[in-house]
Amino acid sequence: METVFYHPLIKELLKRTRTLWAIDHALALMRWDLETSMPRRGSEARSIAISELTVLRRRLLLSDDIRKMVEKLNERLEELNDYEKGVVRVLSRWIRVATALPEELVAKLAKVTSEATPVWAEAKKRNDYEKFKPYLKEIVELTREKAERLGYKEHPYDALLDLYEEGLTTREVENIFDRLIPNTKRVLEKVLSDDFYPRQHPLEKAPYSIDRARQVMANLLERLGWDWERGRLDVSPHPFTIELDIDDVRITTRYEGHDIRRPVYAVIHEYGHALYELQIDRRLARTPIGSGVSLGVHESQSRFWENVIGRSPWFVKLLKPFIDVVVEEARKIDWLELYRYVNIVRPDTIRVEADELTYNLHIYLRFELEKQMIMGEIGVDELPEAWNELMDKLLGVKPKNYSEGVLQDIHWSHGSIGYFPTYTMGNIIAAQIRNRIAMDLDLESTIEENKLAPIRDWLAKRIHRWGSTYPPKELLKRSLGEYANPEHLIRYFEWKYIELPNKLGS
Amino acid sequence: METVFYHPLIKELLKRTRTLWAIDHALALMRWDLETSMPRRGSEARSIAISELTVLRRRLLLSDDIRKMVEKLNERLEELNDYEKGVVRVLSRWIRVATALPEELVAKLAKVTSEATPVWAEAKKRNDYEKFKPYLKEIVELTREKAERLGYKEHPYDALLDLYEEGLTTREVENIFDRLIPNTKRVLEKVLSDDFYPRQHPLEKAPYSIDRARQVMANLLERLGWDWERGRLDVSPHPFTIELDIDDVRITTRYEGHDIRRPVYAVIHEYGHALYELQIDRRLARTPIGSGVSLGVHESQSRFWENVIGRSPWFVKLLKPFIDVVVEEARKIDWLELYRYVNIVRPDTIRVEADELTYNLHIYLRFELEKQMIMGEIGVDELPEAWNELMDKLLGVKPKNYSEGVLQDIHWSHGSIGYFPTYTMGNIIAAQIRNRIAMDLDLESTIEENKLAPIRDWLAKRIHRWGSTYPPKELLKRSLGEYANPEHLIRYFEWKYIELPNKLGS
Repeated sequence: METVFYHPLIKELLKRTRTLWAIDHALALMRWDLETSMPRRGSEARSIAISELTVLRRRLLLSDDIRKMVEKLNERLEELNDYEKGVVRVLSRWIRVATALPEELVAKLAKVTSEATPVWAEAKKRNDYEKFKPYLKEIVELTREKAERLGYKEHPYDALLDLYEEGLTTREVENIFDRLIPNTKRVLEKVLSDDFYPRQHPLEKAPYSIDRARQVMANLLERLGWDWERGRLDVSPHPFTIELDIDDVRITTRYEGHDIRRPVYAVIHEYGHALYELQIDRRLARTPIGSGVSLGVHESQSRFWENVIGRSPWFVKLLKPFIDVVVEEARKIDWLELYRYVNIVRPDTIRVEADELTYNLHIYLRFELEKQMIMGEIGVDELPEAWNELMDKLLGVKPKNYSEGVLQDIHWSHGSIGYFPTYTMGNIIAAQIRNRIAMDLDLESTIEENKLAPIRDWLAKRIHRWGSTYPPKELLKRSLGEYANPEHLIRYFEWKYIELPNKLGS
Repeated sequence: METVFYHPLIKELLKRTRTLWAIDHALALMRWDLETSMPRRGSEARSIAISELTVLRRRLLLSDDIRKMVEKLNERLEELNDYEKGVVRVLSRWIRVATALPEELVAKLAKVTSEATPVWAEAKKRNDYEKFKPYLKEIVELTREKAERLGYKEHPYDALLDLYEEGLTTREVENIFDRLIPNTKRVLEKVLSDDFYPRQHPLEKAPYSIDRARQVMANLLERLGWDWERGRLDVSPHPFTIELDIDDVRITTRYEGHDIRRPVYAVIHEYGHALYELQIDRRLARTPIGSGVSLGVHESQSRFWENVIGRSPWFVKLLKPFIDVVVEEARKIDWLELYRYVNIVRPDTIRVEADELTYNLHIYLRFELEKQMIMGEIGVDELPEAWNELMDKLLGVKPKNYSEGVLQDIHWSHGSIGYFPTYTMGNIIAAQIRNRIAMDLDLESTIEENKLAPIRDWLAKRIHRWGSTYPPKELLKRSLGEYANPEHLIRYFEWKYIELPNKLGS
């Protein structure tokens, strides 16, 4: 196959990094298996194997030969094309992070998070924050140390953001929320004063056959353009996407037997993630730039398909026959009523159940509290109260208990502090894509005419094919003309929640 | 958990070898996924990942620190207990093999076999030996070089046998067949002159529902004592067992929709393999002695369950209600007729379809031809004719074409020369176990009374728990009083095929 890598040192380097890729491939498969297939008691061995291979990967990454090649290449960047520069940039980032974090700190974090996760699950089940508190305390402390060791210019939280979203700063996120929060609340007030978008819907309780739903989800995926020779759809407790290779991308969903919205939009969401990985230039496969560039850009792909496309009136028309097959009650309503059902707006306490409009309020809450925890401005003792207050201020609701409040998310038990803002970045970028794609094709007619290929192709050409060649900021400037700009999302909210109801009638 | 490893150098060594175990765990999962789950186009990435991790494993095994520790321990064996000696023995074997075979030869063999396997599949499909011939030629040549490099005392084939069955020699296999072949033919003549054991049976063509068969296989496995928290049953083109950990052992079978014998006995066979791994002393888990010791001993476990237990009249009684659920035609016959069906004796061309009695004749044929190929006494040109002649001499049948003859097995395309005799070793050892277990418990009443636990426990205590602590010869001398002795198998054949029909009546 044709290559984009010409420089002899890069070629040499890519031979070495292929071993890292192989370890990543194995780790990804282990995680997929863990969630979908592994017998329960296999977990002890699996966690040992994951930890052994993670340590081995770090050792190989920091081996003299790879490090020296990367150093040398950093001095000769002008000899390299964009792809080659991308390889050097990504490897330099990996090496910088691995070097900054001593093995002891990594081991401590791995230990406490692996212990904390089951404790969190139990604590959430029993509404017992006290049980989780000491773990959270240690995780915050170790994360603060992590931030210090990683280094930052302005804010310790910058170091954490950068791990998930290369180059993103606390200040940028603050600026985004400064615009997004008041405007969201303004639109939300309008929606709540109106009854076009309902607060709840009878279909939420309508049952469906899980066996039939599985078949219909497969059909829906095919409708979106899914190729079973390059992917799978399985069942797991929490839906996810995992990339084993450009030709092996697997998604999951779950079925509860009622409220068909959930598996439908989980599948469309994960499809968006998967499509990104499936459409990367195959010449980049198995290199350090052969995957999606950041969590925010990744989330933009899933949110674009889930919300911008999937929750649009035009797509709901297309979706109707699929839903009708599985949910008896759905057959009695028209597509507009189905549109209302999949677009319920309900300020509530649980992030993962939040609608498109209120979702970012949940993220803002976590962003604020994480910053304060990292700065030591609040401790784990004050956290639940701070959570509840801010929740009330933002959404006008108060969690009934810890499980619906501070204990609802798994992220902190994993040590993923700095991760949440990438969800809002995804929402913002998805709206930017909507704005930019409209210059090249008309979404409404494209979807209504049952043609999704032009949309897939547009995304492939503008965004997907580059993999991690460019850092997120540069990629988005090239593909969309600007980096994260919340105005498009605000504009989209105004259109969808204020203007559209008038057009669709009620 | 309690340990059996006390020596400080061993403890240090086991820390290093845990990384090797983690790679083996990943490789095993990759192979399981490849056969059961992987989307078709994932195969390119998978074979790259497998080859990268295999090379990495070799590099780590041959790293200075592991090698030096093993050297040092070999000089201090008297300080070690049996388990610790076992670790040193197994690692010394791994290191010896890896050192003897230069990376270039390993790469050449990997390349030609990975190319040869699909060519073989195609050649078998099209009955086109010419297509496969050049690959087989190169594989034989490289295997001859492999044998020379590995070294041997008497016969180059010894070096190959030892790879699959530690310590087994060509002379030993010859002595076994010298007794086994004429005695098998004698018993076979008796069976063929009689009609208690049929040549064919209407149930071979009786259809079954695959969905229902899946459920019944799961029930049957549970009847055998299967714990779903420690294992899985899946579907793959060829049934196999794979051990990911002592608490994660997975088996597969396949369903063709007729001839229920096949999935039933595939499941029981693989169950025997799995039980061995599941019952190894858990203190040996994730160490070099934490798996079954050799292919022959492994096969003895699968054959013991499949044939000695599974095809016994007493087990067939127990099996009847399971079969009745899936095969309508089976409900009309009694258990004795079912016994006849699962014990069809039919001299025929295909090894994998051979019955218990004629099976070893197929192995002898391959053993003879492999020896001659390795010694250069026959070339790939003469092979099909030699195959057909020997087949006729042994079984009185001639393959209609290459696909039913020389092309029937996948093994040579994998480069697995020296592997076949372990099947007969398994049959012999299974009969020895039958002989030895009878001193402690009565198989007939134990099975008839629906108690399989005493049999599982006996195997655990005598054989399974030791893992690879002792080499096969020592293990069997300790557990059964003697190493591979074909007389027990001959005696079992006489009992089953000559005496039993009189007892069961006809």
